[in-house]
Amino acid sequence: MNGAQTLLSTLVDHGVEVCFANPGTSEMHFVAALDRVPAMRGVLALFEGVATGAADGYARMADKPAAVLLHLGPGLGNGLANLHNARRAHVPMVVVVGDHATYHNRYDAPLESDIEALAGSVSGWMRRTDRVSEICAHTVDAIAASRAGVVSTLILPADVSWADGATTAGAARLSPERVTEPDRGALRGAADVLRSGESAVILLGGDATRVAGLSAADRIAQATGARVLCETFPARLQRGAGIPAVDRLAYFAEAAEAQLAGAQHLILAGTTSPVSFFAYPGKRSDLVPAGCRVHTLAGYAGAAAALESLADEVALDVEATVAPAVRHETPTGPLTAVSLAAVVGAVLPERAIIVDESNTAGVMLAASTAGAPAHDVLTLTGGAIGYGMPAAIGAAIAAPGRPVLSLQADGSAMYTLSALWTQAREQLDITTVILNNGAYDILRIELQRVGAENADSPGARAQDLLDIGRPTIDFVQIAEGMGVPARRVHTAEALGVALTAAFEEPGPHLIEAVVPSILG
Amino acid sequence: MNGAQTLLSTLVDHGVEVCFANPGTSEMHFVAALDRVPAMRGVLALFEGVATGAADGYARMADKPAAVLLHLGPGLGNGLANLHNARRAHVPMVVVVGDHATYHNRYDAPLESDIEALAGSVSGWMRRTDRVSEICAHTVDAIAASRAGVVSTLILPADVSWADGATTAGAARLSPERVTEPDRGALRGAADVLRSGESAVILLGGDATRVAGLSAADRIAQATGARVLCETFPARLQRGAGIPAVDRLAYFAEAAEAQLAGAQHLILAGTTSPVSFFAYPGKRSDLVPAGCRVHTLAGYAGAAAALESLADEVALDVEATVAPAVRHETPTGPLTAVSLAAVVGAVLPERAIIVDESNTAGVMLAASTAGAPAHDVLTLTGGAIGYGMPAAIGAAIAAPGRPVLSLQADGSAMYTLSALWTQAREQLDITTVILNNGAYDILRIELQRVGAENADSPGARAQDLLDIGRPTIDFVQIAEGMGVPARRVHTAEALGVALTAAFEEPGPHLIEAVVPSILG
Repeated sequence: MNGAQTLLSTLVDHGVEVCFANPGTSEMHFVAALDRVPAMRGVLALFEGVATGAADGYARMADKPAAVLLHLGPGLGNGLANLHNARRAHVPMVVVVGDHATYHNRYDAPLESDIEALAGSVSGWMRRTDRVSEICAHTVDAIAASRAGVVSTLILPADVSWADGATTAGAARLSPERVTEPDRGALRGAADVLRSGESAVILLGGDATRVAGLSAADRIAQATGARVLCETFPARLQRGAGIPAVDRLAYFAEAAEAQLAGAQHLILAGTTSPVSFFAYPGKRSDLVPAGCRVHTLAGYAGAAAALESLADEVALDVEATVAPAVRHETPTGPLTAVSLAAVVGAVLPERAIIVDESNTAGVMLAASTAGAPAHDVLTLTGGAIGYGMPAAIGAAIAAPGRPVLSLQADGSAMYTLSALWTQAREQLDITTVILNNGAYDILRIELQRVGAENADSPGARAQDLLDIGRPTIDFVQIAEGMGVPARRVHTAEALGVALTAAFEEPGPHLIEAVVPSILG
Repeated sequence: MNGAQTLLSTLVDHGVEVCFANPGTSEMHFVAALDRVPAMRGVLALFEGVATGAADGYARMADKPAAVLLHLGPGLGNGLANLHNARRAHVPMVVVVGDHATYHNRYDAPLESDIEALAGSVSGWMRRTDRVSEICAHTVDAIAASRAGVVSTLILPADVSWADGATTAGAARLSPERVTEPDRGALRGAADVLRSGESAVILLGGDATRVAGLSAADRIAQATGARVLCETFPARLQRGAGIPAVDRLAYFAEAAEAQLAGAQHLILAGTTSPVSFFAYPGKRSDLVPAGCRVHTLAGYAGAAAALESLADEVALDVEATVAPAVRHETPTGPLTAVSLAAVVGAVLPERAIIVDESNTAGVMLAASTAGAPAHDVLTLTGGAIGYGMPAAIGAAIAAPGRPVLSLQADGSAMYTLSALWTQAREQLDITTVILNNGAYDILRIELQRVGAENADSPGARAQDLLDIGRPTIDFVQIAEGMGVPARRVHTAEALGVALTAAFEEPGPHLIEAVVPSILG
């Protein structure tokens, strides 16, 4: 068995059954090994950022790692932005970066670059496998390390991949996943705070943004008067009818500060102390109100369990309240950010997964889908745009049978566009809605917020650089060019019809929803 | 004047007049400053790899740097692949990476990452500007450093960008560009080798692949019997009627070894000792024949001057021979790699710039265009695909009035597809020909070459992972979706008509040329 076959066998032996791949010459033995290890599903991406984003979406829904196959340093470079998002989402992932043969590196061939420097910036675990005898052990280590919610990167020289003599016999087995026990001191401290009668906010993240954690937090809130908020960009938020509702901390610092105003205590469960996404002249970066004390109940893993323990301590007999099922009629009239969101709320199918990279145009979605059937929302955890359409691939593969709604802003859609082709190739049940407002609207807002705009003249050249409507991007043509059936809608009723049809018909679809800029 | 305005003013004061930009919030003051510094042309890219590839193409044709504006670590990550190619091309470039405000980094906001680690992997010069008073000096240093043919990276915190008080008054001036003098010892050694009567090959790269260097090398060859070859992937090769012809060293090692066979001496002028692009089981990485001695006449800069000195030494009265003008008729019949190349040779306009990322389907182009009107060819120097369509943008902006022919393989086209949108936005005279064979053909060949394919069964799953024709990519729809008029051709005569029409009409065009795989 050669190194590549051993690697693939070890991955599938330990539950890593999908590999999102964009291979090159140095990975040809890995590709060839797919025929020897049929339990591994190879999914081709035409750009590395699609592969890494897909693995992120997969891990968020499967709660286990996928593998990613990348081609040397430049391939890793192309995948970095979505690895950054994955790192921020604390998802497990096993990235295999093919490299030149061990003896070839010293010749500084054209594709030679510093793979370790790039991988180190996003990986929680990284190793170069120099001998084929090490490959099984390294692979097991990579999977084990990834369980801590990190990207594991295995650098695989071509000659290790093609060398014979590797074996999975006698391989170290993965130990059972370690359960993160709640910290007794932190629990006691949080309970004391909650019983003090002082104003407290519980901020949820990590694994606390699913039903168990949300329910526990809701019980605590009912019993103690604490308020509950969810971090701005949760990796996976469960919500909708039958699930305790939670508001997300706002993106804009001013709004977030208003949400946190008056809190004397901030209890962190699965997240870190809230900070402004960007700095702005004369504004604070730290969003914690002056005088508010911050308490860490639990890190991103084990946060739900800690909240459950805390709830049993301070809210033993309290039952969680859940969001009622509320379905509004599909609105009519021209599409706007408001009516678009209302349509989504009106037609969202059961068990949907919403991958949200709608940015400014999606600002009303949370409200409109609050009473829709229970669903998962995956958000842009690291701010590196171009995450949504790839993540939708991974979510659909991890959760076959569940409809995926990929809400995608026009600007960020252009980063990883070829994700549509992989959606078509794999015939995934993904409905992409492009919210096309023809502008980097978020930047038009930020241009004002950072005070960069000249008060008396709006700066024609600056505005022009944020105008992506010249020329108009026709997402219908682009999607069809990649094999995804598409249509364009201008009204709420047309969007409703298009969405319903897309959800009913298997395979991917794209709907270009033309909406005005929220700046008017 | 704030930091951003100072930066832009300093750039234009020193001849950096174009900025390829994909900005975010932390770069809004840079964007706003465009209205204060009208001499700077801001060119919007919808993906960072387009911006960096465009700056590379610009530098190759303008022989001076463009600026690139990127958004934090993830933006830099997206631009890395084409920065890798630029590093290998030895082009000057000034990359400005916007970062969080200096006081914001410590909050580990979502977009925080290790910018230095990424930038260090591709930059010959790198600096973080922490004070607005430093910005002018750092900018001058960045430009000066880039002249050595490197990527200079300036990391610009947002608060330095928006801070007032910077000035360009009293700024250090750039010293005149240093001319690299030929090394007397190296010259003497090369002359001795050439006069020895032993078999010698002169391998050209760097600045020796333009008319002056090619002419000198040709004179030397005539006088001494040495053979002349050009490195496999020159940054900019001048060729065609009226220019001395040179063969490029082959991509596949076996072919390159055949070209170099019998050489007792290898004289390097502007390049390094030839190595195999990839390693292959049982094959050598070093392409220098056994027993052949390698002599370095000159590094990538100053190679043309060194060759001219050498020619005056060993071939004083010899005149260079140049390629004759040869125009064949446009062929007819179904498109193949052969007939496609013949059409290009038959219709190539005067003063064309060919950006070549045609990969396997372009294998016949060198022969077919040998007698076409003099033209420049820009090639994929670093092996990171997705370079061609962005580089065409930069070449067209650097050389207005010259037609750009962007020959693009289908697989690599998918990496930086949104370059088409920028081509449309800027109405650049670029004709893109997509050589669509529906496969990663190079990888199908490599799968055989690396011995990864099972001899008796071709590996259906492996083959499938290299098949990008499922589903078919419709480049006509994709191009039109981005505002570039497009058509599809299946015959040589249709390609001829389409190319001629595209060259005649201003603005960008795309022609999808459907060709069979060269593997049949």
